[in-house]
Amino acid sequence: MNEKPTLILKRLGIDTQNEAVIYMRNDSHICLSEGFVSQARIRVQKGERYIIATLNTVTTPLLHHNEAGLSEYAWQLLEAKEGEEVSLSHPKPLHSLSYIRSKIYGNVLKEQEINAIIEDAVAGHLSDIHTSAFVAACAGGRLNEEEIFYLTHAMAAAGELLSWGKELVVDKHCVGGLPGNRTTPIVVAIVAAYGLIMPKTSSRSITSPAGTADTMEVLAPVELSLDQIRKVVEKENGCIAWGGAVSLSPADDVLIRVERALNVDSEGQLVASVLSKKIAAGSTHVVIDIPIGPTAKVRDASMGIRLQHLLRHVGKLSGLTIKVVLTEGFEPVGRGIGPALEARDVVQVLTNHQDAPADLREHALLLAGNVLEFSPAIERGKGIAIAEDLLRNGKAWAKFQAICEAQGGMREIPQSCCRHDYLAEKTGKITQIDTRRIALLAKLAGAPQFKAAGVDLHVKLHAIVEKGQPLFTIHSQSSGELNYALSFLHESNELIRLEEME
Amino acid sequence: MNEKPTLILKRLGIDTQNEAVIYMRNDSHICLSEGFVSQARIRVQKGERYIIATLNTVTTPLLHHNEAGLSEYAWQLLEAKEGEEVSLSHPKPLHSLSYIRSKIYGNVLKEQEINAIIEDAVAGHLSDIHTSAFVAACAGGRLNEEEIFYLTHAMAAAGELLSWGKELVVDKHCVGGLPGNRTTPIVVAIVAAYGLIMPKTSSRSITSPAGTADTMEVLAPVELSLDQIRKVVEKENGCIAWGGAVSLSPADDVLIRVERALNVDSEGQLVASVLSKKIAAGSTHVVIDIPIGPTAKVRDASMGIRLQHLLRHVGKLSGLTIKVVLTEGFEPVGRGIGPALEARDVVQVLTNHQDAPADLREHALLLAGNVLEFSPAIERGKGIAIAEDLLRNGKAWAKFQAICEAQGGMREIPQSCCRHDYLAEKTGKITQIDTRRIALLAKLAGAPQFKAAGVDLHVKLHAIVEKGQPLFTIHSQSSGELNYALSFLHESNELIRLEEME
Repeated sequence: MNEKPTLILKRLGIDTQNEAVIYMRNDSHICLSEGFVSQARIRVQKGERYIIATLNTVTTPLLHHNEAGLSEYAWQLLEAKEGEEVSLSHPKPLHSLSYIRSKIYGNVLKEQEINAIIEDAVAGHLSDIHTSAFVAACAGGRLNEEEIFYLTHAMAAAGELLSWGKELVVDKHCVGGLPGNRTTPIVVAIVAAYGLIMPKTSSRSITSPAGTADTMEVLAPVELSLDQIRKVVEKENGCIAWGGAVSLSPADDVLIRVERALNVDSEGQLVASVLSKKIAAGSTHVVIDIPIGPTAKVRDASMGIRLQHLLRHVGKLSGLTIKVVLTEGFEPVGRGIGPALEARDVVQVLTNHQDAPADLREHALLLAGNVLEFSPAIERGKGIAIAEDLLRNGKAWAKFQAICEAQGGMREIPQSCCRHDYLAEKTGKITQIDTRRIALLAKLAGAPQFKAAGVDLHVKLHAIVEKGQPLFTIHSQSSGELNYALSFLHESNELIRLEEME
Repeated sequence: MNEKPTLILKRLGIDTQNEAVIYMRNDSHICLSEGFVSQARIRVQKGERYIIATLNTVTTPLLHHNEAGLSEYAWQLLEAKEGEEVSLSHPKPLHSLSYIRSKIYGNVLKEQEINAIIEDAVAGHLSDIHTSAFVAACAGGRLNEEEIFYLTHAMAAAGELLSWGKELVVDKHCVGGLPGNRTTPIVVAIVAAYGLIMPKTSSRSITSPAGTADTMEVLAPVELSLDQIRKVVEKENGCIAWGGAVSLSPADDVLIRVERALNVDSEGQLVASVLSKKIAAGSTHVVIDIPIGPTAKVRDASMGIRLQHLLRHVGKLSGLTIKVVLTEGFEPVGRGIGPALEARDVVQVLTNHQDAPADLREHALLLAGNVLEFSPAIERGKGIAIAEDLLRNGKAWAKFQAICEAQGGMREIPQSCCRHDYLAEKTGKITQIDTRRIALLAKLAGAPQFKAAGVDLHVKLHAIVEKGQPLFTIHSQSSGELNYALSFLHESNELIRLEEME
């Protein structure tokens, strides 16, 4: 009498991203006998594997009575094949849900409670509603330092854990917020050229017009397997791969998808996200760059110092040496905002091109210098000079090309098809650049989904421009998106403030 | 060049409950030209109407390139018909999302910010992720009194607002948590028999085995239109209708669906939910019953007193007279837990049946007495005696039958098909009844989805029972659910604690 009812899988091919959904006829015997109604959570088992999926009932002949469909995410989690049989049952109440509730009510979570939440998130047992409530309950400074530490470790432990058999494995990370701040490929090239091990895994954009992985993908493949990463790093000391492809801290992707939909970054989840990836990647020494400015992610020094403390503290608990560099962030770094435009800036710096953006070069050297100083062979304060040498003498560029080749071959930077120049309406001095809104403009233009899309800035803060001079160019891959960006532009107040001079 | 692209609607019949979803081919020209990817939020316009829907892309020939499907909820919101054309575009950034973010970060929301969130929630502009984050950010006491007041009014204003042209329109509400506490139909019958106006709208279950509307529906139709409610009340002074059917505070349904998935009740949203329905229903004087007990929704007196204060305070700001009755809640009231079983208890009390549960009768009289005392004709302290008279002399029962007839005709109470008696394992005294777990058991058995499902308690606290005597009976409408309830029962510690006597 405990035989579980079964259905035959039919592939509907519906992509819901990271939400497991099962589709069944609302008048199927199984819905009636088990009392399943729309939005019910159902345990779907195939052999030894199972997931918990949200039911969407179907009232049309899309499915037969003995058939079930799955969202593509659920299909992958179950490694399903057309025509296979799944058995369905009511899931047991998830303990993780009580812990999420506990957090909503403001309680401090214990280690095993956080572990349970992260395990269920990665296993696809939580619905979007559950994950969103967890993200919201943790944001706004509601995780204490211990909870952040537990979260960091739960996230790292939920995926692959790399180890390199070396005492010094370096890394760098930027807390983001400054469009175009694409120092990573430059830093990896310099540090690997020097000879330190830097197996860099980067993320795709959360709420920005491009993540490092999006930008690097313009120049070389980044979706490398663990084995491929090992081979690249053994050969070239460094790599610039997408972290998501190797299942380092996969919980991060689940949380990030919800954070993106909410456009929320929580301090605790930010620290856990950064450090869990570093732990999983097997890093031992990490430089973390926190740009601070009115339109950066970190808006004031006190928040920067709080983050610095959290990163160092949780890092120390985790056995990581963390060096935090607080930098100024008043305007975009480099010229391009969007994957291809940023990739162009990176290549210009690495090739010592005459148009190379000086600010991006300088910022990359500062970070590379700090990373190099993790080496016992380099005296404190000497790192930047060594980094500059490696850049100037072409060794960094040679190393970068070698890394691209090792990752699968260097690529040409794509060009956009639709462009619009935004011209200065008067002659004057640039007194403000609204970084946040310019990033939004780049996103509306199609970045990072379309590589060539974004905004190319032609001017810097304090520059003097003449009426009719182009201030920036919007690049799109489709007229729809260009129109969308333009309509936002027309409704916005000045993204770049010009003041007439006396 | 600003022509928006269009697609032809095809009905897929997928029920996602209150989430608007649009289905489109991932390789359709519109996805490519507009840059729409799965989980994107899309503005879907049909004539003057529009909604914002979440995109699920489809990789199979389920849809042609020029077709789009909608979830049933989106289909209804748009009043769509097969073959109609919709135009698609990127939605403008929703202001309400910044306000939800602001709440996540712990800020106090302004009146217009709360209005914007509720308006977008009712219009279907928020995704489940957004609504869930809002619910989580408001729970745990994170709404102050002003915010609760604004939320109450925003919720009331988002739906129909009834008015009865009378100075005294009474109502009662129970904050819940005690299974089987089904006093409402009895109170309405008594109060209407006395002659006061009591247009009662009730909700369906949130997290309990039955809401009043679920129970009342066993005895008569409750999905009444506004016009039908008016006619019933004009004729009989009172009614017991489902609030959701008349769009009183429709935001409540949107929030409740998410609260149910999270199994969360927030204090502020609870107050706003209760009072917004009362304001929308045109009530002027309301008795609110708060049972307090270790397994009730309100667990201790201090939380009860806090709620009492909030309800009175926000009620006063809203022009409502609120009388709060704090009662003890240590065990279920009545015998039945589940719609049909509770309806049977109600009828037994109203008909002065010899088996009528005394506790339910007493509780209903206490509340009816308090409501009656809103009448200037009744002295304080005399209400209960008058209520008891009306019950004993059959006038309340006659009125109840008349109300059922006016609502569409009285119904027979359905019987369950699958039952299981749970027997005492030893002789002894009942020292504890785990109300919360018994409610869960009733839900696992199928309540409130299946009317006849639930748990029928045969014993009360402190009773002395003999080994083998049935303590309760589980009722189900399907063997699947009965099995599910039984497997929970076998894994649980004692739901009813028996202590052997010396």
